[in-house]
Amino acid sequence: MAIRMYDLAGEETARRFSPFCWRSRMALAHKGLNVETIPWRFTEKGAIAHSGQERVPVIEDGGRVLADSWAIANYLEEAYPGRSSLFGGPAGHAMARFFNSWAEIVLIPGIASFVAADILRHLDPRDRDYFRQTREKRFGMSVDDFCASRETRVSGFRQSLEPLRQTLQAQPFFGGETPLYPDYIVFGGFQWARAISPFALLENADPIAKWRERMLDAFDGLARNSPAY
Amino acid sequence: MAIRMYDLAGEETARRFSPFCWRSRMALAHKGLNVETIPWRFTEKGAIAHSGQERVPVIEDGGRVLADSWAIANYLEEAYPGRSSLFGGPAGHAMARFFNSWAEIVLIPGIASFVAADILRHLDPRDRDYFRQTREKRFGMSVDDFCASRETRVSGFRQSLEPLRQTLQAQPFFGGETPLYPDYIVFGGFQWARAISPFALLENADPIAKWRERMLDAFDGLARNSPAY
Repeated sequence: MAIRMYDLAGEETARRFSPFCWRSRMALAHKGLNVETIPWRFTEKGAIAHSGQERVPVIEDGGRVLADSWAIANYLEEAYPGRSSLFGGPAGHAMARFFNSWAEIVLIPGIASFVAADILRHLDPRDRDYFRQTREKRFGMSVDDFCASRETRVSGFRQSLEPLRQTLQAQPFFGGETPLYPDYIVFGGFQWARAISPFALLENADPIAKWRERMLDAFDGLARNSPAY
Repeated sequence: MAIRMYDLAGEETARRFSPFCWRSRMALAHKGLNVETIPWRFTEKGAIAHSGQERVPVIEDGGRVLADSWAIANYLEEAYPGRSSLFGGPAGHAMARFFNSWAEIVLIPGIASFVAADILRHLDPRDRDYFRQTREKRFGMSVDDFCASRETRVSGFRQSLEPLRQTLQAQPFFGGETPLYPDYIVFGGFQWARAISPFALLENADPIAKWRERMLDAFDGLARNSPAY
């Protein structure tokens, strides 16, 4: 039986844009596991109440229910040890946490400041008030103000990605010769942006953009073939 | 025969303060390798000319001469495979590069802006003009101006370390349950500061400060027992 995954969807059901759900989608593909995604909207808290919390991704695997992308990656690694490792061993698992923390603090808030207003345009109408209210509380300002003057701010954002860039100048993936979970952590952010915004976060010549192309090609174009800009 | 390592020293020969040399010192200790350090000053370019470049650390192991802390770590890992691994395998090796890049771009320049003027006070008199000239060119301003108002800037620096902090809230070391090379990468920066400056980069209650204490205890207090504040 396929694993089921509650996956954030927009007004267009096929448009999947959560950075955290993309991490789990890619991790499931890495493990070669079949997944049935269940489109989910921000306001459908009841549908995932059995996970004991209110956010996606949530996966159901047989009788087990798991939430949180990091916990899901750990679960997949432990439950499916015979399949391609997501971490490459305990050292890789420990070091992957730093990617997770860096993405949480630098990458995700950085990208949010460019695409939050675009998210709003793609949401299911039932979700729009919820998103606007929760985000304006988080940002301390209107979504439009939060995303203002992005053309002038983008060079600073690109500069903040320099640790990624320098790493990718030395090796094709954060995991080395092939992608590992840190690649999915970072890629989730870029696929999130790509799914709901035409804004160019990266210049085409950027080594990070070239890596993103490789990630879009992974798993027979899983991410590339999902609705996006 | 012990490995020889050219190690940046101050006016006081026992005061060793290069963040990059500390990475290699800790890596050598991790491998359980004996090392004879050779105090070296910035202006002694001739003493390391056989390494084909002008910076320390440089190690000599039998007939082999290596420069650059990352290259040295790779060398030690390959040349001494039977000893405790610095990376915990290929995945850890690949992910350690991100720590190296992050430290290069965020940590080292950040710390420099608090301690560069203190370095100058501890240098061998022969090195002072060299240091002032090269750093003022790099910083685009006087060393004193570069380090100005550090008390007001330090909160921003501490905030920039949040990815480290969040990682250390989940596990005792960046390498997991025990230190690996990423711990030495990051620790090198803090030991550099500690060796030449009384300025408190961290608050005592900070999880990063608690990790630093664990690192100071490592290898029978190797770093703790070196001249420092």
